[in-house]
Amino acid sequence: MAGIEQLDQDIAGRLKRDRDGLVAAVVRQYDTGEVLMLAWMDDEALHRTLTTGRATYWSRSRGEYWVKGDTSGHIQHVKSVALDCDGDALLLSVDQVGPACHTGTRTCFTDELPVTADTAAAAR
Amino acid sequence: MAGIEQLDQDIAGRLKRDRDGLVAAVVRQYDTGEVLMLAWMDDEALHRTLTTGRATYWSRSRGEYWVKGDTSGHIQHVKSVALDCDGDALLLSVDQVGPACHTGTRTCFTDELPVTADTAAAAR
Repeated sequence: MAGIEQLDQDIAGRLKRDRDGLVAAVVRQYDTGEVLMLAWMDDEALHRTLTTGRATYWSRSRGEYWVKGDTSGHIQHVKSVALDCDGDALLLSVDQVGPACHTGTRTCFTDELPVTADTAAAAR
Repeated sequence: MAGIEQLDQDIAGRLKRDRDGLVAAVVRQYDTGEVLMLAWMDDEALHRTLTTGRATYWSRSRGEYWVKGDTSGHIQHVKSVALDCDGDALLLSVDQVGPACHTGTRTCFTDELPVTADTAAAAR
């Protein structure tokens, strides 16, 4: 049965995939709004995410599906999913168990880059 | 002078670009944390963003650089930029003037998709 299930065709028709058939998935903690990570989905990963409530991605490096937390225990319970205006990005609101990042930090975005513009300094 | 400037080589070395030379850029409002949009950057777009304080992207559909707000007036003043753990995504914290979306909505993520899993309903 699972083998013949697929992403709703109306939703599939709204996706704008890259050359590898992927869209970007931004993940935030549903209640605090904190941005946790970015991962990638193809149609099947999105279908599994919507129908299981467990965030499921396509690993570009490993070339396989990846249910977040299956190895680490750091599960993402999916609260809601929104597609953006041009269909190439998703925003997942999740309840993240433990750290989102494989390095052990809450969020993956920890490498601050220098903004050197004077205007940025002035606007702070 | 501008022609010979380029992205800091230490930063460039930490980027993991897709086949088109791009990384994903998640954009949030710096004070509320609201996720506004997702766009794409190559090295030059990131360099311009860091050094001008104005969010600058690569348009995949138009094949050109795009300074957010140059046409619409809906400028993004860049407060900070962080790279993620595997170097394929950036998180920009900006002060967004007006709506971020070209459709006139504050955020681009307005197309809610149905999460049909029983577990999602139970977790609400």
